[in-house]
Amino acid sequence: MKRVILIIEYDGTSYVGWQQQPNGISVQKLITEAIELLTGERINLHASGRTDSGVHARAQVAHFDTCSRIPAEKFSYALNTILPDDIRIRASFEGDDGFHSRFGVQKKHYVYQIINSPHASAFTAHTALHVHVPLNLEALKRSAEYFLGEHDFLSFKASGSSAKTTVRTIYTSEWTKQGSYLYYHVAGNGFLYNMVRIMTGSMLLVGKGYKSPEFIKDALDNPGRENAGDTAPAHGLTLYRVEYNEFDTEEKLKEAEMFIRR
Amino acid sequence: MKRVILIIEYDGTSYVGWQQQPNGISVQKLITEAIELLTGERINLHASGRTDSGVHARAQVAHFDTCSRIPAEKFSYALNTILPDDIRIRASFEGDDGFHSRFGVQKKHYVYQIINSPHASAFTAHTALHVHVPLNLEALKRSAEYFLGEHDFLSFKASGSSAKTTVRTIYTSEWTKQGSYLYYHVAGNGFLYNMVRIMTGSMLLVGKGYKSPEFIKDALDNPGRENAGDTAPAHGLTLYRVEYNEFDTEEKLKEAEMFIRR
Repeated sequence: MKRVILIIEYDGTSYVGWQQQPNGISVQKLITEAIELLTGERINLHASGRTDSGVHARAQVAHFDTCSRIPAEKFSYALNTILPDDIRIRASFEGDDGFHSRFGVQKKHYVYQIINSPHASAFTAHTALHVHVPLNLEALKRSAEYFLGEHDFLSFKASGSSAKTTVRTIYTSEWTKQGSYLYYHVAGNGFLYNMVRIMTGSMLLVGKGYKSPEFIKDALDNPGRENAGDTAPAHGLTLYRVEYNEFDTEEKLKEAEMFIRR
Repeated sequence: MKRVILIIEYDGTSYVGWQQQPNGISVQKLITEAIELLTGERINLHASGRTDSGVHARAQVAHFDTCSRIPAEKFSYALNTILPDDIRIRASFEGDDGFHSRFGVQKKHYVYQIINSPHASAFTAHTALHVHVPLNLEALKRSAEYFLGEHDFLSFKASGSSAKTTVRTIYTSEWTKQGSYLYYHVAGNGFLYNMVRIMTGSMLLVGKGYKSPEFIKDALDNPGRENAGDTAPAHGLTLYRVEYNEFDTEEKLKEAEMFIRR
């Protein structure tokens, strides 16, 4: 038996999210079925974490155990012939028995994409939030800095989630701009349910001028969901990169994009 | 009566192309119906040219005449509330009576997008051609240079099209690379039916090593469709920019992305 690790890219528009749900098709379900078709086995596919309905992934990580003789590296090619074109396995490789996609996560990176322009774009309708009023980039940058370091993120947690602790550490929290697009980059040791979307929605109140950047500091200092802003829509969010002790998806994607010399 | 000019972006995936067809929905049909709904008039919408089924536009230009009192600049906002999110009016403005979207074209620019990587991407499944064997960028660049200048493009014209002359002038013909993506940029005074797709398909034979760059020179020197290569798929192609004596879509898009100060 071997443990196979997948790096998965998906456009989440058509799915109910990563996890199997009774009310629609999940990314997990389609990949699980494709693996079962190839191996003839029943498998359990474990991911680095769930993504909500409409949220995308550039580098979701998942693993499964198999007795199949298909080499780990070949699973990406074989699965891509079965999967729909909005789900792509960018890389597959063998991992140690001790590796776990969820429990081994050291750092996760997300990117939230906004098109800040009078009109939206036909090409990013499902991957960028359209904000048609001008956003103050300097205010967004200042508000993002408050998230850096270790904080109680209770104000930025959706109700109904059952995390043991609401303390998380944020390593990167910054806004960049490219043409009409604004990007919020955030990396942390873990994220509560809807946390990135509530962080983004709260900063947007600052970017639109309704609140000062200190609104973020106050929401961190006074834990309570009512002290933060709205939950930004799912479709702007992408799980961008996951880091483990064993590997970093960034390196694996670079390797995967190189052609095997023949 | 006034002449209103639209700059239109569309993801062509779901459409039969620009022009109305009996077998499906066209971009022209949806925009015409939206204008008729707003104005209560019957209108004729003229574009810079047709785009095939699956081809995209970043800056298609079209015009219509109306007696409506809606200011020309407001049509973009009003139409975007009616149109599906894969068609966006990026700008609207008034033109002279003498302006014509098709007859006034000075230069058209297209971009053909290729993802040259072992695996395709979930995000560009409908906007980039996936080529899974390594392409020789230097050979592509050399082959593209042969297109520059005035030539008879008969070898690069789909049969069944009825152009008066097959002579066209190409001003830009170059390949660029960004990560796993290759882009072919081409600008000319006009293009025959399927011309950019046949040019791209022919260069791909060179990029894959089946032909030398001189294959392109030979196809230009010996007019005949059998002397060029295959027609590259529609979904990699985007109408990128159109230039007239009166304006250039590039400037108009830049202006349109600026917020009106209030």
